[in-house]
Amino acid sequence: MDSITSSSYAVHFNAVAYSMLNEHLENANYSKVFILVDENTHEYCLPKFMSNISVACEFEIIEIEAGEIHKNIETCSQVWEVLSELDADRKSLMINLGGGVITDLGGFVASTFKRGIDFINVPTTLLSMVDASVGGKTGVDLGPLKNQVGVINQPIMVLVVSNFLETLEERQLQSGFAEMLKHGLLKSMEYWEQLKNVTSYTDLDALIYESVVMKNEVVLQDPTEQSLRKILNYGHTLGHAIESYFLESDEHELLLHGEAIAIGMILEAFLSYKLTNLSEKELVDIKKEFSSRYKKVDFSSEDIKSILELLKFDKKNSHGNINFVLLTAIGETAIDVQVPHELFKESFEYYQE
Amino acid sequence: MDSITSSSYAVHFNAVAYSMLNEHLENANYSKVFILVDENTHEYCLPKFMSNISVACEFEIIEIEAGEIHKNIETCSQVWEVLSELDADRKSLMINLGGGVITDLGGFVASTFKRGIDFINVPTTLLSMVDASVGGKTGVDLGPLKNQVGVINQPIMVLVVSNFLETLEERQLQSGFAEMLKHGLLKSMEYWEQLKNVTSYTDLDALIYESVVMKNEVVLQDPTEQSLRKILNYGHTLGHAIESYFLESDEHELLLHGEAIAIGMILEAFLSYKLTNLSEKELVDIKKEFSSRYKKVDFSSEDIKSILELLKFDKKNSHGNINFVLLTAIGETAIDVQVPHELFKESFEYYQE
Repeated sequence: MDSITSSSYAVHFNAVAYSMLNEHLENANYSKVFILVDENTHEYCLPKFMSNISVACEFEIIEIEAGEIHKNIETCSQVWEVLSELDADRKSLMINLGGGVITDLGGFVASTFKRGIDFINVPTTLLSMVDASVGGKTGVDLGPLKNQVGVINQPIMVLVVSNFLETLEERQLQSGFAEMLKHGLLKSMEYWEQLKNVTSYTDLDALIYESVVMKNEVVLQDPTEQSLRKILNYGHTLGHAIESYFLESDEHELLLHGEAIAIGMILEAFLSYKLTNLSEKELVDIKKEFSSRYKKVDFSSEDIKSILELLKFDKKNSHGNINFVLLTAIGETAIDVQVPHELFKESFEYYQE
Repeated sequence: MDSITSSSYAVHFNAVAYSMLNEHLENANYSKVFILVDENTHEYCLPKFMSNISVACEFEIIEIEAGEIHKNIETCSQVWEVLSELDADRKSLMINLGGGVITDLGGFVASTFKRGIDFINVPTTLLSMVDASVGGKTGVDLGPLKNQVGVINQPIMVLVVSNFLETLEERQLQSGFAEMLKHGLLKSMEYWEQLKNVTSYTDLDALIYESVVMKNEVVLQDPTEQSLRKILNYGHTLGHAIESYFLESDEHELLLHGEAIAIGMILEAFLSYKLTNLSEKELVDIKKEFSSRYKKVDFSSEDIKSILELLKFDKKNSHGNINFVLLTAIGETAIDVQVPHELFKESFEYYQE
């Protein structure tokens, strides 16, 4: 697969990924190479990864606990301190080997350690391959509020090696696929139809590539999210609030990111139908597709109230207004749409129907 | 005084500073303006500052505890959380009103809150006027290790209002003056001689201006510290280690930043004499000047051992080597000089003589 060039770095795939990495390590003369993992990627991905390294470097492994709940400043402090203790310097490299928590948090830690050291992202989940791999968003959560602290900073390279997906459970793959379905809704009816045809989450290479190309094109045109890049937030305004709420709640089972934004995409399709002329036929098509892949969640009116409360912390807000990305049709979007408050409850009713 | 233009922002002085700020607030349409202060600047500087604001904005004051000991990630977390609670959004502005702790920490908090909001620095100490005001270095300490976590990011503007200096004690002014003496050593014999003539720390406006111009020229040529900018670290390699050691030690009185780097500059002048041909006459001149202004500190051999231990955490290190900026003459520098370990003890002996 051809490598994809982004602003200042490239995304390399499969066999090419390892040869580019080895070449880079050979030439860059790093003082030390740190690999950030969680207990899962330590066990299942690191051996695979190391067996493809052919360069003699000094490697140090830093392990953090798995899970969104650990994507916070306390974990960053631990990693910064370990880096200090292990004599990391400005010529050190950090390789983030894991899902979105590892690449988001590791990217932030690297971007801020001694005001910034090189880092490479090696996403090991479908979600992080198609989402976190390009765009340069790094950061951590602040309590239940997602990604409130972070910077935009680019890795040196991104390596997408699809056989890491073999280490994942079906539910994880399904969650990641929600972001790809989002790319379909944003890009074209043709890509959406292609994705709808997927019945098994093995052998997604061509579609992963397509999704990375799509996201990369958007991000290159608008790296700092002034306008076009906002479309990538489709489903995420309500989706993030739902994810945050479930993360904090003791009564509910944890929702994976993709599962939360799948609900967000149904809700925001309903808002699109009401506000930006999405046709009823496409609305029904979207609801049907997500409902068939993701299990339905029951929201009490208390739940909904709490979720809507969290909306005000959305990063896209300003001056007290909540700005949505909505669809005008499958493959077409409108940004900065303000939604009358009464429609939120209606959208949850439509989801629950 | 003419404003000084840096990479993407300007440094404005005195009356012009307030008119530029008012004009900016008028035009920028911020959702909210947050002013970060400590208990001292809250009491002594904020009233002065607010009395010069002629624009109706929604202001919120955030106070943190004064002192280098609070320049850490825990304080950042408190400020991030308060920003969230007070509904800060991406269109909010943060004004950092205080010394280096406030501008360094506040700059870092603003640069990372929701991946970056606008900030303005209003340095209120001599040190922060001539040092932190340009260059874009933001960050906090990690335990005793100075500025280990941070980013390079530029403020929207910097306002240097010298009448804030009236609120400072003599010792604070003297500490800040050490950075100006450093500018003299780096820039020219002429500027060094001018600074040596200073007998009172009132009415420094022209020299503050000169120092900001000097630092700005260096930073513009090398914003990311690849080569030239390193010269600004003169005196800081040993000076930071001394400052860190005194910060952690229970037995020693706290040293102010300028007091620590004043010692560092004598030590590193001695290293320059030994390694890069600084003349004995200039070495003696440097020692005499700093000794006359800053009180002598006694170092036990245990102290010195601990201080040298801390050197390995210096941000300029790589591959286990400690790189120094030394003088070849007053006004001329050499960068990336490696120092044989035995010279460190000798330099302390020279200082103590």
